[in-house]
Amino acid sequence: MFWLNGEIFDGPRAPFDLTDRGLLLGDGVFDTALVLGGRIFCGEAHLKRLFEAMAALGIRADHGQIHQAAEALSARGKDGVLRLTVTRGPGPRGLRPQEPQHPTILATFAPLSPNLFFAPLSLHLSAIRRNETSPTSRLKTLNYLDAILAARDAAEKGHDEALLLNCAGRVACAAAGNVFAVFGQEIVTPPLSEGVLPGIIRSVILAECGAREAALDFTEVMTADALFVTNSVRLISPVTRLGDRALRSSESRVIGDLQHHIRQALLAECTADLPFPQAPAAHKSG
Amino acid sequence: MFWLNGEIFDGPRAPFDLTDRGLLLGDGVFDTALVLGGRIFCGEAHLKRLFEAMAALGIRADHGQIHQAAEALSARGKDGVLRLTVTRGPGPRGLRPQEPQHPTILATFAPLSPNLFFAPLSLHLSAIRRNETSPTSRLKTLNYLDAILAARDAAEKGHDEALLLNCAGRVACAAAGNVFAVFGQEIVTPPLSEGVLPGIIRSVILAECGAREAALDFTEVMTADALFVTNSVRLISPVTRLGDRALRSSESRVIGDLQHHIRQALLAECTADLPFPQAPAAHKSG
Repeated sequence: MFWLNGEIFDGPRAPFDLTDRGLLLGDGVFDTALVLGGRIFCGEAHLKRLFEAMAALGIRADHGQIHQAAEALSARGKDGVLRLTVTRGPGPRGLRPQEPQHPTILATFAPLSPNLFFAPLSLHLSAIRRNETSPTSRLKTLNYLDAILAARDAAEKGHDEALLLNCAGRVACAAAGNVFAVFGQEIVTPPLSEGVLPGIIRSVILAECGAREAALDFTEVMTADALFVTNSVRLISPVTRLGDRALRSSESRVIGDLQHHIRQALLAECTADLPFPQAPAAHKSG
Repeated sequence: MFWLNGEIFDGPRAPFDLTDRGLLLGDGVFDTALVLGGRIFCGEAHLKRLFEAMAALGIRADHGQIHQAAEALSARGKDGVLRLTVTRGPGPRGLRPQEPQHPTILATFAPLSPNLFFAPLSLHLSAIRRNETSPTSRLKTLNYLDAILAARDAAEKGHDEALLLNCAGRVACAAAGNVFAVFGQEIVTPPLSEGVLPGIIRSVILAECGAREAALDFTEVMTADALFVTNSVRLISPVTRLGDRALRSSESRVIGDLQHHIRQALLAECTADLPFPQAPAAHKSG
Protein backbone atom coordinates (compact mmCIF):
# COMPACT_ATOMS: atom_id res chain seq x y z
CA MET A 1 0.00 0.00 0.00
CA PHE A 2 1.47 3.33 -1.07
CA TRP A 3 0.65 6.99 -0.48
CA LEU A 4 2.36 9.40 -2.87
CA ASN A 5 1.75 13.15 -2.62
CA GLY A 6 -1.86 12.70 -1.55
CA GLU A 7 -2.87 9.70 -3.66
CA ILE A 8 -3.16 6.09 -2.52
CA PHE A 9 -1.86 3.29 -4.77
CA ASP A 10 -2.33 -0.41 -4.15
CA GLY A 11 0.52 -1.55 -6.38
CA PRO A 12 4.10 -0.27 -6.32
CA ARG A 13 3.98 1.49 -9.72
CA ALA A 14 2.90 5.12 -9.78
CA PRO A 15 3.61 8.20 -11.88
CA PHE A 16 6.83 9.65 -10.49
CA ASP A 17 8.99 12.64 -11.43
CA LEU A 18 12.31 11.21 -12.62
CA THR A 19 14.12 14.43 -11.67
CA ASP A 20 13.33 13.81 -7.99
CA ARG A 21 16.45 14.60 -5.95
CA GLY A 22 15.62 11.77 -3.57
CA LEU A 23 16.05 9.30 -6.42
CA LEU A 24 19.00 11.01 -8.11
CA LEU A 25 21.06 12.24 -5.13
CA GLY A 26 19.67 10.59 -2.01
CA ASP A 27 18.45 14.06 -1.02
CA GLY A 28 15.80 13.13 1.53
CA VAL A 29 14.99 11.54 4.86
CA PHE A 30 12.77 8.76 6.11
CA ASP A 31 11.32 7.07 9.14
CA THR A 32 10.33 3.50 9.89
CA ALA A 33 7.79 2.77 12.61
CA LEU A 34 5.95 -0.23 13.99
CA VAL A 35 2.17 -0.19 13.64
CA LEU A 36 0.01 -2.52 15.74
CA GLY A 37 -3.78 -2.42 15.81
CA GLY A 38 -3.69 0.62 13.53
CA ARG A 39 -1.62 2.64 16.02
CA ILE A 40 1.95 3.79 15.44
CA PHE A 41 4.17 2.87 18.40
CA CYS A 42 5.79 6.10 19.66
CA GLY A 43 4.13 7.84 16.72
CA GLU A 44 4.73 11.40 17.94
CA ALA A 45 8.40 10.71 18.61
CA HIS A 46 8.80 9.24 15.10
CA LEU A 47 7.18 12.25 13.45
CA LYS A 48 9.14 14.70 15.59
CA ARG A 49 12.42 13.08 14.55
CA LEU A 50 11.39 13.09 10.89
CA PHE A 51 10.45 16.77 11.04
CA GLU A 52 13.75 17.61 12.74
CA ALA A 53 15.68 15.74 10.03
CA MET A 54 13.74 17.64 7.34
CA ALA A 55 14.58 20.92 9.08
CA ALA A 56 18.27 19.99 9.27
CA LEU A 57 18.33 19.50 5.50
CA GLY A 58 16.04 22.46 4.78
CA ILE A 59 13.25 20.30 3.31
CA ARG A 60 9.94 22.08 3.87
CA ALA A 61 7.26 19.44 3.31
CA ASP A 62 3.84 20.01 4.83
CA HIS A 63 3.65 18.41 8.31
CA GLY A 64 -0.11 18.04 8.07
CA GLN A 65 0.18 16.00 4.89
CA ILE A 66 2.77 13.72 6.47
CA HIS A 67 0.48 13.18 9.47
CA GLN A 68 -2.33 12.44 7.03
CA ALA A 69 -0.26 9.88 5.10
CA ALA A 70 0.81 8.16 8.33
CA GLU A 71 -2.74 7.96 9.65
CA ALA A 72 -4.27 6.83 6.35
CA LEU A 73 -1.87 3.90 5.91
CA SER A 74 -1.84 2.87 9.59
CA ALA A 75 -5.64 2.82 9.80
CA ARG A 76 -5.88 0.73 6.64
CA GLY A 77 -2.92 -1.56 7.33
CA LYS A 78 -3.56 -2.29 11.04
CA ASP A 79 -0.39 -4.35 11.70
CA GLY A 80 2.81 -3.68 9.82
CA VAL A 81 5.75 -1.39 9.24
CA LEU A 82 5.04 2.18 8.18
CA ARG A 83 7.74 3.97 6.25
CA LEU A 84 7.53 7.72 5.66
CA THR A 85 9.90 9.12 3.04
CA VAL A 86 10.29 12.82 2.33
CA THR A 87 12.57 14.03 -0.46
CA ARG A 88 13.46 17.53 -1.55
CA GLY A 89 11.42 16.79 -4.68
CA PRO A 90 12.15 17.40 -8.36
CA GLY A 91 14.92 19.77 -9.38
CA PRO A 92 17.32 20.69 -12.16
CA ARG A 93 20.86 19.24 -12.47
CA GLY A 94 23.37 20.29 -9.82
CA LEU A 95 24.05 19.72 -6.14
CA ARG A 96 22.73 22.93 -4.68
CA PRO A 97 18.98 22.86 -3.95
CA GLN A 98 16.94 25.33 -5.96
CA GLU A 99 13.84 27.29 -4.94
CA PRO A 100 10.91 26.90 -5.01
CA GLN A 101 11.04 23.33 -3.71
CA HIS A 102 8.19 20.86 -4.10
CA PRO A 103 9.00 18.05 -1.66
CA THR A 104 7.85 14.52 -2.37
CA ILE A 105 5.97 12.69 0.38
CA LEU A 106 5.89 8.91 0.02
CA ALA A 107 4.43 6.53 2.59
CA THR A 108 4.57 2.76 2.31
CA PHE A 109 3.14 0.02 4.49
CA ALA A 110 4.83 -3.39 4.64
CA PRO A 111 3.77 -6.60 6.41
CA LEU A 112 5.04 -7.33 9.94
CA SER A 113 7.99 -9.63 10.48
CA PRO A 114 7.03 -10.87 13.98
CA ASN A 115 9.97 -13.28 13.99
CA LEU A 116 12.25 -10.24 14.23
CA PHE A 117 10.81 -8.95 17.52
CA PHE A 118 13.40 -9.39 20.30
CA ALA A 119 15.28 -11.86 18.03
CA PRO A 120 18.89 -12.45 19.13
CA LEU A 121 21.59 -11.60 16.61
CA SER A 122 25.32 -11.89 16.03
CA LEU A 123 27.51 -8.90 15.15
CA HIS A 124 30.42 -8.57 12.73
CA LEU A 125 32.85 -5.68 13.18
CA SER A 126 32.69 -3.71 9.93
CA ALA A 127 35.72 -2.16 8.23
CA ILE A 128 33.47 0.75 7.22
CA ARG A 129 33.48 3.56 9.77
CA ARG A 130 30.51 5.76 10.66
CA ASN A 131 31.43 9.32 9.70
CA GLU A 132 30.64 11.36 12.80
CA THR A 133 31.95 14.52 11.10
CA SER A 134 28.83 14.53 8.92
CA PRO A 135 25.44 15.74 10.18
CA THR A 136 23.95 12.89 8.12
CA SER A 137 25.36 10.38 10.65
CA ARG A 138 22.73 11.68 13.09
CA LEU A 139 19.86 11.78 10.58
CA LYS A 140 17.88 8.98 8.99
CA THR A 141 18.63 9.95 5.39
CA LEU A 142 18.26 8.12 2.10
CA ASN A 143 22.04 7.58 2.04
CA TYR A 144 22.10 3.97 3.22
CA LEU A 145 24.82 2.45 1.07
CA ASP A 146 27.42 2.22 3.84
CA ALA A 147 24.92 0.36 5.99
CA ILE A 148 23.95 -1.89 3.06
CA LEU A 149 27.59 -2.77 2.36
CA ALA A 150 28.30 -3.36 6.06
CA ALA A 151 25.24 -5.61 6.38
CA ARG A 152 26.15 -7.50 3.21
CA ASP A 153 29.68 -8.05 4.48
CA ALA A 154 28.38 -9.23 7.86
CA ALA A 155 26.08 -11.74 6.15
CA GLU A 156 28.95 -13.05 4.02
CA LYS A 157 30.94 -13.61 7.24
CA GLY A 158 28.04 -15.57 8.76
CA HIS A 159 26.69 -12.81 11.03
CA ASP A 160 23.28 -11.15 11.28
CA GLU A 161 24.31 -7.54 11.64
CA ALA A 162 27.30 -5.20 11.45
CA LEU A 163 28.87 -3.17 14.26
CA LEU A 164 30.31 0.14 13.05
CA LEU A 165 32.99 2.16 14.79
CA ASN A 166 33.24 5.87 14.00
CA CYS A 167 36.20 7.60 12.36
CA ALA A 168 37.74 8.19 15.81
CA GLY A 169 37.73 4.41 16.36
CA ARG A 170 35.03 4.34 19.03
CA VAL A 171 31.76 2.39 18.93
CA ALA A 172 28.95 4.08 16.96
CA CYS A 173 26.06 1.78 16.06
CA ALA A 174 24.84 -1.22 14.10
CA ALA A 175 24.03 -1.02 10.38
CA ALA A 176 20.34 -0.76 11.26
CA GLY A 177 20.09 0.02 14.94
CA ASN A 178 21.61 1.47 18.09
CA VAL A 179 24.05 -0.47 20.24
CA PHE A 180 23.93 -0.75 24.04
CA ALA A 181 26.41 -2.37 26.41
CA VAL A 182 25.49 -3.81 29.82
CA PHE A 183 28.04 -3.70 32.67
CA GLY A 184 26.47 -5.20 35.80
CA GLN A 185 23.29 -3.16 36.22
CA GLU A 186 24.65 -0.30 34.10
CA ILE A 187 23.26 0.24 30.60
CA VAL A 188 25.38 2.42 28.32
CA THR A 189 25.06 3.65 24.73
CA PRO A 190 27.24 6.10 22.76
CA PRO A 191 26.04 9.73 22.58
CA LEU A 192 24.76 11.14 19.28
CA SER A 193 28.03 13.06 18.81
CA GLU A 194 29.74 9.74 18.06
CA GLY A 195 27.84 9.57 14.76
CA VAL A 196 24.71 7.95 16.14
CA LEU A 197 21.12 8.08 14.90
CA PRO A 198 18.66 9.16 17.64
CA GLY A 199 16.75 5.88 17.59
CA ILE A 200 13.25 5.90 19.05
CA ILE A 201 13.66 2.72 21.10
CA ARG A 202 17.06 4.08 22.17
CA SER A 203 15.40 7.24 23.50
CA VAL A 204 12.75 5.22 25.38
CA ILE A 205 15.47 3.19 27.10
CA LEU A 206 17.42 6.35 27.96
CA ALA A 207 14.37 8.21 29.25
CA GLU A 208 12.53 5.42 31.04
CA CYS A 209 14.99 2.66 31.96
CA GLY A 210 17.94 4.40 33.61
CA ALA A 211 20.38 3.91 30.74
CA ARG A 212 23.02 6.59 30.14
CA GLU A 213 25.09 7.93 27.28
CA ALA A 214 28.86 7.48 27.28
CA ALA A 215 31.55 7.08 24.65
CA LEU A 216 32.55 3.42 24.31
CA ASP A 217 35.85 2.04 23.10
CA PHE A 218 35.72 -1.24 21.24
CA THR A 219 37.83 -2.87 23.97
CA GLU A 220 35.27 -1.80 26.58
CA VAL A 221 32.44 -3.29 24.55
CA MET A 222 34.42 -6.52 24.32
CA THR A 223 34.38 -6.73 28.13
CA ALA A 224 30.64 -6.00 28.54
CA ASP A 225 28.46 -8.56 30.32
CA ALA A 226 25.91 -8.29 27.54
CA LEU A 227 25.16 -6.28 24.42
CA PHE A 228 21.97 -5.47 22.60
CA VAL A 229 20.80 -3.72 19.48
CA THR A 230 17.64 -1.64 19.26
CA ASN A 231 15.53 -0.48 16.37
CA SER A 232 11.84 0.10 15.76
CA VAL A 233 11.24 -3.22 14.00
CA ARG A 234 13.43 -5.57 16.05
CA LEU A 235 12.75 -3.63 19.27
CA ILE A 236 15.49 -5.11 21.51
CA SER A 237 17.81 -7.80 20.16
CA PRO A 238 20.33 -9.48 22.49
CA VAL A 239 23.76 -9.92 20.85
CA THR A 240 24.82 -13.57 21.04
CA ARG A 241 28.17 -13.14 19.34
CA LEU A 242 30.53 -10.28 18.51
CA GLY A 243 32.99 -11.58 15.94
CA ASP A 244 34.48 -14.71 17.49
CA ARG A 245 33.39 -13.86 21.04
CA ALA A 246 30.25 -15.57 22.33
CA LEU A 247 28.03 -13.49 24.61
CA ARG A 248 25.31 -14.62 27.02
CA SER A 249 23.13 -11.59 26.31
CA SER A 250 20.07 -13.77 25.75
CA GLU A 251 20.27 -14.80 29.41
CA SER A 252 20.74 -11.25 30.68
CA ARG A 253 18.13 -10.28 33.28
CA VAL A 254 18.83 -6.60 32.51
CA ILE A 255 17.96 -7.09 28.83
CA GLY A 256 14.97 -9.26 29.74
CA ASP A 257 13.63 -6.43 31.91
CA LEU A 258 14.06 -3.93 29.08
CA GLN A 259 12.20 -6.22 26.70
CA HIS A 260 9.42 -6.52 29.27
CA HIS A 261 9.30 -2.72 29.53
CA ILE A 262 8.94 -2.29 25.76
CA ARG A 263 6.31 -5.04 25.65
CA GLN A 264 4.28 -3.22 28.33
CA ALA A 265 4.63 0.04 26.43
CA LEU A 266 3.34 -1.65 23.27
CA LEU A 267 0.39 -3.08 25.22
CA ALA A 268 -0.41 0.31 26.69
CA GLU A 269 -0.04 2.31 23.50
CA CYS A 270 -1.11 0.01 20.67
CA THR A 271 -2.99 -3.22 21.20
CA ALA A 272 -3.65 -6.09 23.61
CA ASP A 273 -3.18 -8.48 20.72
CA LEU A 274 0.64 -8.52 20.51
CA PRO A 275 2.02 -10.66 17.67
CA PHE A 276 4.57 -12.43 19.89
CA PRO A 277 4.52 -14.63 23.01
CA GLN A 278 3.56 -13.38 26.50
CA ALA A 279 7.16 -13.16 27.66
CA PRO A 280 10.03 -12.68 25.22
CA ALA A 281 12.37 -15.66 24.92
CA ALA A 282 15.25 -13.85 26.64
CA HIS A 283 13.16 -13.16 29.73
CA LYS A 284 12.03 -16.73 30.13
CA SER A 285 15.57 -18.05 30.19
CA GLY A 286 16.86 -15.16 32.38
CA MET B 1 14.49 13.71 -22.24
CA PHE B 2 14.35 10.50 -20.23
CA TRP B 3 15.07 6.84 -20.92
CA LEU B 4 13.67 4.47 -18.29
CA ASN B 5 14.14 0.71 -18.64
CA GLY B 6 13.91 0.80 -22.43
CA GLU B 7 11.25 3.47 -22.91
CA ILE B 8 11.78 7.11 -23.87
CA PHE B 9 9.78 9.84 -22.13
CA ASP B 10 9.76 13.51 -23.08
CA GLY B 11 8.50 14.78 -19.73
CA PRO B 12 9.89 13.93 -16.30
CA ARG B 13 6.87 11.91 -15.11
CA ALA B 14 6.87 8.19 -15.80
CA PRO B 15 5.49 5.04 -14.17
CA PHE B 16 8.04 4.11 -11.50
CA ASP B 17 8.21 1.33 -8.92
CA LEU B 18 8.02 3.02 -5.51
CA THR B 19 9.89 0.12 -3.86
CA ASP B 20 13.00 0.95 -5.90
CA ARG B 21 16.03 0.70 -3.62
CA GLY B 22 17.65 3.60 -5.45
CA LEU B 23 14.84 5.86 -4.28
CA LEU B 24 14.43 4.37 -0.78
CA LEU B 25 18.04 3.64 0.23
CA GLY B 26 20.31 5.35 -2.28
CA ASP B 27 21.24 1.86 -3.47
CA GLY B 28 22.65 2.69 -6.87
CA VAL B 29 25.32 4.44 -8.91
CA PHE B 30 25.43 7.04 -11.64
CA ASP B 31 27.60 8.79 -14.17
CA THR B 32 27.54 12.28 -15.63
CA ALA B 33 29.17 12.91 -19.00
CA LEU B 34 29.50 15.78 -21.43
CA VAL B 35 27.94 15.28 -24.85
CA LEU B 36 28.91 17.50 -27.78
CA GLY B 37 27.76 16.97 -31.36
CA GLY B 38 26.01 13.79 -30.25
CA ARG B 39 29.25 12.25 -29.00
CA ILE B 40 30.02 11.47 -25.34
CA PHE B 41 33.41 12.89 -24.35
CA CYS B 42 35.50 9.96 -23.00
CA GLY B 43 32.40 7.81 -23.42
CA GLU B 44 34.16 4.47 -22.99
CA ALA B 45 35.91 5.62 -19.81
CA HIS B 46 32.60 6.83 -18.37
CA LEU B 47 30.86 3.53 -19.10
CA LYS B 48 33.79 1.52 -17.78
CA ARG B 49 33.72 3.41 -14.48
CA LEU B 50 29.95 2.99 -14.21
CA PHE B 51 30.22 -0.77 -14.85
CA GLU B 52 32.99 -1.07 -12.24
CA ALA B 53 30.87 0.78 -9.66
CA MET B 54 27.94 -1.54 -10.42
CA ALA B 55 30.21 -4.55 -9.97
CA ALA B 56 31.51 -3.20 -6.65
CA LEU B 57 27.93 -3.01 -5.35
CA GLY B 58 26.84 -6.27 -7.00
CA ILE B 59 24.31 -4.56 -9.29
CA ARG B 60 23.95 -6.65 -12.44
CA ALA B 61 22.24 -4.41 -14.99
CA ASP B 62 22.59 -5.22 -18.67
CA HIS B 63 25.61 -3.39 -20.15
CA GLY B 64 24.10 -3.49 -23.62
CA GLN B 65 20.99 -1.68 -22.44
CA ILE B 66 23.06 1.00 -20.74
CA HIS B 67 25.05 1.51 -23.95
CA GLN B 68 21.74 1.74 -25.82
CA ALA B 69 20.32 4.33 -23.41
CA ALA B 70 23.49 6.42 -23.65
CA GLU B 71 23.54 6.32 -27.43
CA ALA B 72 19.82 6.99 -27.84
CA LEU B 73 19.84 10.13 -25.69
CA SER B 74 23.17 11.44 -27.00
CA ALA B 75 22.12 11.08 -30.62
CA ARG B 76 18.84 12.87 -29.96
CA GLY B 77 20.19 15.52 -27.60
CA LYS B 78 23.37 16.47 -29.51
CA ASP B 79 24.79 18.94 -26.93
CA GLY B 80 24.17 18.50 -23.24
CA VAL B 81 24.86 16.52 -20.11
CA LEU B 82 24.05 12.82 -20.13
CA ARG B 83 23.34 11.22 -16.78
CA LEU B 84 23.16 7.42 -16.49
CA THR B 85 21.65 6.10 -13.26
CA VAL B 86 21.56 2.41 -12.35
CA THR B 87 19.83 1.27 -9.17
CA ARG B 88 19.51 -2.19 -7.69
CA GLY B 89 15.82 -1.95 -8.60
CA PRO B 90 12.69 -2.78 -6.59
CA GLY B 91 12.92 -4.88 -3.46
CA PRO B 92 11.20 -5.73 -0.18
CA ARG B 93 11.91 -3.92 3.10
CA GLY B 94 15.33 -4.47 4.66
CA LEU B 95 18.92 -3.51 3.98
CA ARG B 96 20.25 -6.73 2.52
CA PRO B 97 19.69 -7.02 -1.25
CA GLN B 98 17.40 -9.88 -2.28
CA GLU B 99 17.58 -12.09 -5.37
CA PRO B 100 16.52 -12.04 -8.11
CA GLN B 101 17.34 -8.40 -8.74
CA HIS B 102 15.76 -6.30 -11.48
CA PRO B 103 17.98 -3.23 -11.77
CA THR B 104 16.53 0.07 -12.90
CA ILE B 105 18.28 1.89 -15.75
CA LEU B 106 17.47 5.58 -16.02
CA ALA B 107 19.12 7.98 -18.44
CA THR B 108 18.46 11.71 -18.52
CA PHE B 109 19.71 14.44 -20.83
CA ALA B 110 20.02 18.03 -19.57
CA PRO B 111 20.95 21.22 -21.43
CA LEU B 112 24.58 22.38 -21.51
CA SER B 113 25.80 25.03 -19.09
CA PRO B 114 28.61 26.41 -21.28
CA ASN B 115 29.31 29.14 -18.73
CA LEU B 116 30.63 26.40 -16.41
CA PHE B 117 33.40 25.26 -18.77
CA PHE B 118 36.79 26.23 -17.32
CA ALA B 119 35.00 28.69 -15.01
CA PRO B 120 37.15 29.80 -12.05
CA LEU B 121 35.78 29.05 -8.59
CA SER B 122 36.42 29.72 -4.93
CA LEU B 123 36.67 26.95 -2.33
CA HIS B 124 35.39 26.77 1.23
CA LEU B 125 36.97 24.23 3.60
CA SER B 126 34.09 21.98 4.71
CA ALA B 127 33.69 20.66 8.26
CA ILE B 128 32.35 17.42 6.74
CA ARG B 129 35.08 14.87 6.09
CA ARG B 130 35.18 12.43 3.19
CA ASN B 131 34.99 8.93 4.67
CA GLU B 132 37.88 7.06 3.05
CA THR B 133 37.09 3.93 5.11
CA SER B 134 34.03 3.38 2.92
CA PRO B 135 34.22 1.92 -0.58
CA THR B 136 31.47 4.39 -1.51
CA SER B 137 34.00 7.24 -1.25
CA ARG B 138 35.58 5.86 -4.43
CA LEU B 139 32.30 5.21 -6.29
CA LYS B 140 29.83 7.65 -7.82
CA THR B 141 26.82 6.48 -5.81
CA LEU B 142 23.40 7.98 -5.19
CA ASN B 143 24.53 8.95 -1.65
CA TYR B 144 25.24 12.61 -2.32
CA LEU B 145 23.95 14.27 0.84
CA ASP B 146 27.37 15.01 2.33
CA ALA B 147 28.34 16.74 -0.91
CA ILE B 148 25.01 18.61 -1.01
CA LEU B 149 25.45 19.84 2.57
CA ALA B 150 29.08 20.81 1.94
CA ALA B 151 28.11 22.71 -1.23
CA ARG B 152 25.22 24.43 0.56
CA ASP B 153 27.51 25.47 3.40
CA ALA B 154 30.10 26.78 0.92
CA ALA B 155 27.45 28.86 -0.86
CA GLU B 156 26.26 30.30 2.46
CA LYS B 157 29.84 31.36 3.17
CA GLY B 158 30.08 33.07 -0.22
CA HIS B 159 32.08 30.39 -2.02
CA ASP B 160 31.38 28.37 -5.17
CA GLU B 161 32.50 24.94 -4.02
CA ALA B 162 33.59 22.96 -0.97
CA LEU B 163 36.96 21.36 -0.29
CA LEU B 164 36.68 18.15 1.73
CA LEU B 165 39.43 16.62 3.83
CA ASN B 166 39.21 12.91 4.64
CA CYS B 167 38.86 11.40 8.11
CA ALA B 168 42.66 11.29 8.42
CA GLY B 169 42.72 15.06 7.92
CA ARG B 170 44.33 15.02 4.47
CA VAL B 171 42.93 16.57 1.28
CA ALA B 172 40.36 14.42 -0.54
CA CYS B 173 38.30 16.28 -3.13
CA ALA B 174 35.71 18.95 -3.86
CA ALA B 175 31.99 18.35 -3.33
CA ALA B 176 31.63 17.74 -7.07
CA GLY B 177 35.08 17.23 -8.49
CA ASN B 178 38.70 16.25 -8.02
CA VAL B 179 41.28 18.63 -6.62
CA PHE B 180 44.77 19.20 -8.03
CA ALA B 181 47.62 21.30 -6.64
CA VAL B 182 50.34 22.89 -8.78
CA PHE B 183 53.85 23.32 -7.35
CA GLY B 184 56.12 24.88 -10.00
CA GLN B 185 55.69 22.54 -12.97
CA GLU B 186 54.50 19.69 -10.74
CA ILE B 187 50.81 18.70 -10.82
CA VAL B 188 49.63 16.59 -7.87
CA THR B 189 46.30 15.04 -6.85
CA PRO B 190 45.46 12.69 -3.95
CA PRO B 191 45.33 8.95 -4.71
CA LEU B 192 41.98 7.13 -4.67
CA SER B 193 42.84 5.57 -1.30
CA GLU B 194 42.33 8.99 0.29
CA GLY B 195 38.58 8.67 -0.40
CA VAL B 196 38.65 10.01 -3.92
CA LEU B 197 36.34 9.38 -6.86
CA PRO B 198 38.20 8.26 -10.00
CA GLY B 199 37.14 11.28 -12.06
CA ILE B 200 37.35 10.98 -15.82
CA ILE B 201 39.05 14.36 -16.39
CA ARG B 202 41.32 13.47 -13.45
CA SER B 203 42.40 10.27 -15.19
CA VAL B 204 43.05 12.11 -18.48
CA ILE B 205 45.32 14.58 -16.68
CA LEU B 206 47.12 11.75 -14.88
CA ALA B 207 47.55 9.66 -18.03
CA GLU B 208 48.32 12.36 -20.60
CA CYS B 209 49.64 15.45 -18.83
CA GLY B 210 52.38 14.22 -16.50
CA ALA B 211 50.42 14.73 -13.25
CA ARG B 212 51.05 12.35 -10.36
CA GLU B 213 49.21 11.01 -7.34
CA ALA B 214 50.39 11.89 -3.84
CA ALA B 215 48.77 12.38 -0.46
CA LEU B 216 48.35 16.09 0.29
CA ASP B 217 48.14 17.74 3.69
CA PHE B 218 45.99 20.83 3.94
CA THR B 219 49.04 22.90 4.85
CA GLU B 220 50.77 21.78 1.64
CA VAL B 221 47.77 22.74 -0.43
CA MET B 222 47.81 26.16 1.24
CA THR B 223 51.34 26.67 -0.12
CA ALA B 224 50.58 25.56 -3.69
CA ASP B 225 51.24 27.99 -6.55
CA ALA B 226 47.83 27.20 -7.98
CA LEU B 227 44.88 24.86 -7.46
CA PHE B 228 42.24 23.54 -9.79
CA VAL B 229 39.13 21.40 -9.65
CA THR B 230 38.14 18.97 -12.38
CA ASN B 231 34.86 17.34 -13.31
CA SER B 232 33.14 16.29 -16.49
CA VAL B 233 30.91 19.35 -16.71
CA ARG B 234 33.27 22.11 -15.54
CA LEU B 235 36.27 20.36 -17.11
CA ILE B 236 39.13 22.34 -15.44
CA SER B 237 38.29 25.15 -13.01
CA PRO B 238 41.11 27.31 -11.58
CA VAL B 239 40.66 28.00 -7.87
CA THR B 240 40.75 31.74 -7.23
CA ARG B 241 40.32 31.57 -3.48
CA LEU B 242 40.66 28.93 -0.75
CA GLY B 243 38.90 30.29 2.32
CA ASP B 244 40.49 33.69 2.94
CA ARG B 245 43.53 33.02 0.78
CA ALA B 246 43.52 34.47 -2.74
CA LEU B 247 45.17 32.34 -5.42
CA ARG B 248 46.39 33.36 -8.87
CA SER B 249 45.35 30.03 -10.42
CA SER B 250 43.56 31.80 -13.29
CA GLU B 251 46.94 33.14 -14.42
CA SER B 252 48.71 29.79 -14.11
CA ARG B 253 50.38 28.76 -17.36
CA VAL B 254 50.34 25.12 -16.16
CA ILE B 255 46.54 25.20 -15.76
CA GLY B 256 46.15 27.07 -19.05
CA ASP B 257 48.09 24.32 -20.81
CA LEU B 258 45.86 21.63 -19.24
CA GLN B 259 42.75 23.48 -20.36
CA HIS B 260 44.20 23.66 -23.86
CA HIS B 261 44.87 19.92 -23.76
CA ILE B 262 41.27 19.15 -22.79
CA ARG B 263 39.97 21.52 -25.44
CA GLN B 264 42.03 19.74 -28.09
CA ALA B 265 40.74 16.38 -26.87
CA LEU B 266 37.15 17.62 -27.14
CA LEU B 267 37.85 18.88 -30.68
CA ALA B 268 39.38 15.55 -31.66
CA GLU B 269 36.74 13.35 -30.07
CA CYS B 270 33.46 15.25 -30.30
CA THR B 271 32.96 18.27 -32.49
CA ALA B 272 34.66 21.24 -34.17
CA ASP B 273 31.82 23.42 -32.94
CA LEU B 274 32.88 23.90 -29.30
CA PRO B 275 30.41 25.92 -27.23
CA PHE B 276 33.11 28.14 -25.69
CA PRO B 277 35.74 30.62 -26.99
CA GLN B 278 38.82 29.58 -28.96
CA ALA B 279 41.08 29.88 -25.93
CA PRO B 280 39.77 29.49 -22.40
CA ALA B 281 39.84 32.64 -20.30
CA ALA B 282 42.64 31.38 -18.07
CA HIS B 283 44.90 30.73 -21.04
CA LYS B 284 44.38 34.17 -22.50
CA SER B 285 45.50 35.86 -19.33
CA GLY B 286 48.33 33.35 -18.71
